[in-house]
Amino acid sequence: MKRIESVQNPRVKQWRKLHTRKERDKTGTFLAEGFHLVEEALKNKELVAEVITGETTLIPKDWNLDHTDIYLVTDEILTSLSETETPQGIFAVCRQNKVQDDPQWKRVLLLDAVQDPGNLGTIIRTADAAGIDGIVLGEGTVDPYNAKTVRSSQGSVFHIPLAKGQLGEWISRLNGRQIPVYGTALEGAVSYKEAESKEAFALLLGNEGKGVSPEWLEMTNQNLYIPIYGGAESLNVAIAAGILMYHLRG
Amino acid sequence: MKRIESVQNPRVKQWRKLHTRKERDKTGTFLAEGFHLVEEALKNKELVAEVITGETTLIPKDWNLDHTDIYLVTDEILTSLSETETPQGIFAVCRQNKVQDDPQWKRVLLLDAVQDPGNLGTIIRTADAAGIDGIVLGEGTVDPYNAKTVRSSQGSVFHIPLAKGQLGEWISRLNGRQIPVYGTALEGAVSYKEAESKEAFALLLGNEGKGVSPEWLEMTNQNLYIPIYGGAESLNVAIAAGILMYHLRG
Repeated sequence: MKRIESVQNPRVKQWRKLHTRKERDKTGTFLAEGFHLVEEALKNKELVAEVITGETTLIPKDWNLDHTDIYLVTDEILTSLSETETPQGIFAVCRQNKVQDDPQWKRVLLLDAVQDPGNLGTIIRTADAAGIDGIVLGEGTVDPYNAKTVRSSQGSVFHIPLAKGQLGEWISRLNGRQIPVYGTALEGAVSYKEAESKEAFALLLGNEGKGVSPEWLEMTNQNLYIPIYGGAESLNVAIAAGILMYHLRG
Repeated sequence: MKRIESVQNPRVKQWRKLHTRKERDKTGTFLAEGFHLVEEALKNKELVAEVITGETTLIPKDWNLDHTDIYLVTDEILTSLSETETPQGIFAVCRQNKVQDDPQWKRVLLLDAVQDPGNLGTIIRTADAAGIDGIVLGEGTVDPYNAKTVRSSQGSVFHIPLAKGQLGEWISRLNGRQIPVYGTALEGAVSYKEAESKEAFALLLGNEGKGVSPEWLEMTNQNLYIPIYGGAESLNVAIAAGILMYHLRG
């Protein structure tokens, strides 16, 4: 256990820098805040670099912190690190889940420029629940390691591997492995109910306003839509993700 | 068109009071902010009491504002009314969608103490898309007419009727009408896939943390769960609502 008392300490400054995407990208780490998220992170200890806690923070007895670097810091430092309205005085510096070059995932979610951090977090949580093997974040997708996404994933960022990649390359590779790729679109698409459940599949979802780019929709095996029966114009992308993933996995 | 120039004008003060649930409950009205929401409101003109706009606000030509009271106000007043970070200078004072005592809905959503405004808005939007006839908000459910819920409903609060009610009475009445009521629970429940799609059904969803109260679960015809295949502990309540409503309506 190491103690830090100054908010100007270089390590504290470094932690605060993790509030920016630039620093998270550079270091391959991110900050998880609060008891639930730190507990989820500790279940996969390889992902935890450091735990940060305060004098008055009560750490649950069943947490295994052997071989973990622990920093005891002042309330002022805890406050300076927090991005929530009700800080709990506990953080972990976590390593981003590394993905090998060509993972042999059977159930894959592909995301094209999903922009809202809360939506992305909910999609990650839902994909984890639906037993998806991995998620590919295409260009223009919000950083999954920002505080809001990590929080709304409810810790699923620690369970499910995330790859940043070029969607065209991924679709080609999945095609090469005979895995059907389903896009989502309003035109040139069939009702999702016509797609049967599959052992292996990839599902491609798009931006909140613009949907999936036409160039990727042309590469899919089939494009699906979810019927709208009432007066709503569309479904939230995380809701669509949930309905389609659960339908396709059967 | 009437002009108001002072933020202290009694009518302006009255509008601002609509930021509180107490005033919304008392008057049966609420404030909708932004072009998209006001446009959705105007599609059901009975629901629009007043439109509030500014000198520089450009109102789309295709809006039909005949027989609508319009108030032209200063930027200062617009700012004082806004609850968003990027005010668009347009508001409507709307009437809450009144529901008759015993509506003969065939597809019904029952909500037990859903607390997050964003979740409730997304549920309303999804229920509207899924062709649900009406939603019953049980005790402890957040006010559907707060700004965040109205916004995340994307205008579906104007399409789908919302009733505040006692869930036990509703379940009894639905039973009396031979409409099957499905609860959601982790114990004493069957996988949702075992429930077949139905012409008429009621679905009961619960609080984000505690789920549905045991007293209501005892009154249902069957309780359903959504299987979790991965590491997530649970699904977000709006996601669960989407999967179940689309599954049940078939």
